[in-house]
Amino acid sequence: MRVLITGAAGFLGSHLCERFLNEGYEVVGMDNFVTGNPQNLAHLAGREGFSFIRHDVSDFIFVPGKLDIVLHFASPASPNPLSPFGYPNLPIQTLKAGALGTHHSLGVARVNNARFLLASTSEIYGDPEVHPQDESYWGRVNPISPRSVYDEAKRFAESLTMAYHRFHGLNTGIVRIFNTYGPRMHIDDGRVVPNFLKQALYRQPLTVYGDGLQTRSFCYVDDLIEGIYRLVMSDEHDPVNIGNPIESTILDFARLINKLTGNPADIVFRERQRGESDPQRRRPDITRARRILGWEPQIDIEEGLRRTIPYFKEKLALS
Amino acid sequence: MRVLITGAAGFLGSHLCERFLNEGYEVVGMDNFVTGNPQNLAHLAGREGFSFIRHDVSDFIFVPGKLDIVLHFASPASPNPLSPFGYPNLPIQTLKAGALGTHHSLGVARVNNARFLLASTSEIYGDPEVHPQDESYWGRVNPISPRSVYDEAKRFAESLTMAYHRFHGLNTGIVRIFNTYGPRMHIDDGRVVPNFLKQALYRQPLTVYGDGLQTRSFCYVDDLIEGIYRLVMSDEHDPVNIGNPIESTILDFARLINKLTGNPADIVFRERQRGESDPQRRRPDITRARRILGWEPQIDIEEGLRRTIPYFKEKLALS
Repeated sequence: MRVLITGAAGFLGSHLCERFLNEGYEVVGMDNFVTGNPQNLAHLAGREGFSFIRHDVSDFIFVPGKLDIVLHFASPASPNPLSPFGYPNLPIQTLKAGALGTHHSLGVARVNNARFLLASTSEIYGDPEVHPQDESYWGRVNPISPRSVYDEAKRFAESLTMAYHRFHGLNTGIVRIFNTYGPRMHIDDGRVVPNFLKQALYRQPLTVYGDGLQTRSFCYVDDLIEGIYRLVMSDEHDPVNIGNPIESTILDFARLINKLTGNPADIVFRERQRGESDPQRRRPDITRARRILGWEPQIDIEEGLRRTIPYFKEKLALS
Repeated sequence: MRVLITGAAGFLGSHLCERFLNEGYEVVGMDNFVTGNPQNLAHLAGREGFSFIRHDVSDFIFVPGKLDIVLHFASPASPNPLSPFGYPNLPIQTLKAGALGTHHSLGVARVNNARFLLASTSEIYGDPEVHPQDESYWGRVNPISPRSVYDEAKRFAESLTMAYHRFHGLNTGIVRIFNTYGPRMHIDDGRVVPNFLKQALYRQPLTVYGDGLQTRSFCYVDDLIEGIYRLVMSDEHDPVNIGNPIESTILDFARLINKLTGNPADIVFRERQRGESDPQRRRPDITRARRILGWEPQIDIEEGLRRTIPYFKEKLALS
């Protein structure tokens, strides 16, 4: 059995490569390294069953040999407007990865009659009116905002995936991924976990905007990969939320990170800014994932952070 | 001055070709005839300044010579699931016309540093919570419904157009077109005006679903084309609604059409069906069009229908 993973050098793509290799699959990784990092795949180089094609999914995809599964995970995904990897700075690449990339990935799946999985996102829910969000919620997205390049690309990709399923009978699935953290994430991702970890490891006070009582929920990457793996193995066609529904306040995150890193510099409070890159509150309703996949997160935030800190130390070249 | 019009053989595209020729422009029409009809352009064949390229906008666009304006109007646009021209039966072509077609049209505009206009639609508002809809409303669209192939393609196209404006500095505009009727419309479009006109001209009773007190608003094509022409001539970049805000009940439409066609067969009432192809109620707020373009509709429904009936008679081969 052989699987193609686009975005293989990305945070989630690299974990998926590893997981499928561990399950005995041959894995073909594909990436153009616009936001993916070759270092994320360095440990897989030379491993039996693993091969790699450097390619931009916005161009026609050809993969020699039979494929049984195609996972389309290629896309810029960081909302950070200050990072060169953030999709606000890669608007047209982001739209193309969602439209042309999904079209070409579906095409190669169709040629092979392979199971196809689209990496969608909680961002398709936009600025939601309901909490938590279940899969029947249609979302609230501004189609012309600078942020829309990611949200609308993924909504389009979902619509195209369903059209291939309905019209061509392709065996497709859609995972809506919520905030995830863990080793190999972009440390300049711009969200609260990497921001706090960097400040804590540099022994700076953690910056909390507002009173810190706003909440976030984060899923540890191993939990997420388990959910995605189960969804690929299922024959579910409708979208499934995968994420951690447990919310914590920003202040609790900050205190926990200072404790786990032994950061003595405490916390500073700043006035809340409009337009901060950290996205609005979202929380997955995972009823469908529980029912269809028997899945729920196993790793709590403290354990997840303990596993993530060594990676941040290494990236920051701290011992 | 030279203008490229994609979807030139369509209902609106053919009227735009005529309008720009009448204004003294050279016009290059482009169409693949999937839903466009060569008959819509027959009267322009051989007219000075008019040329035509048979081409699918989902493939790379090359047009020899300088272009000053690019109007992207190519897409299936009928919601009728019973028509081979309806986008429910052309889901992948519809998604491609919105994504690849817009990408290629923007590309040819960029090469020429031309003014670009995207034909968007009131469908991006989906099933709206507010009436009437102004341009700041984000819409409510189900990304995975069969109908979403049109709605999400157009939302994606808007996002891509704004990205070209913001990132490449292209002079773009977006028109959100509401329900329109007039000569050269698809007579199997599936909406209430063509349905009633066909029944009336065949001397059948007009079928009204429910009590007929639900409302619709329709814009006569000449009014619409005037609004689009003014928007092209402006340098407005944000979306502008163009449509007729005057609502009538379905029952009033039916009575008026029977009167104008001299149909003696009256009206029959049927139970309202779920999933009828006639779209839900939408009504444009045209405050921006009035302010920016000095535009509002001039032709009332009775006059518009009088001008439309001879076309339907001709299409139905009735004298």
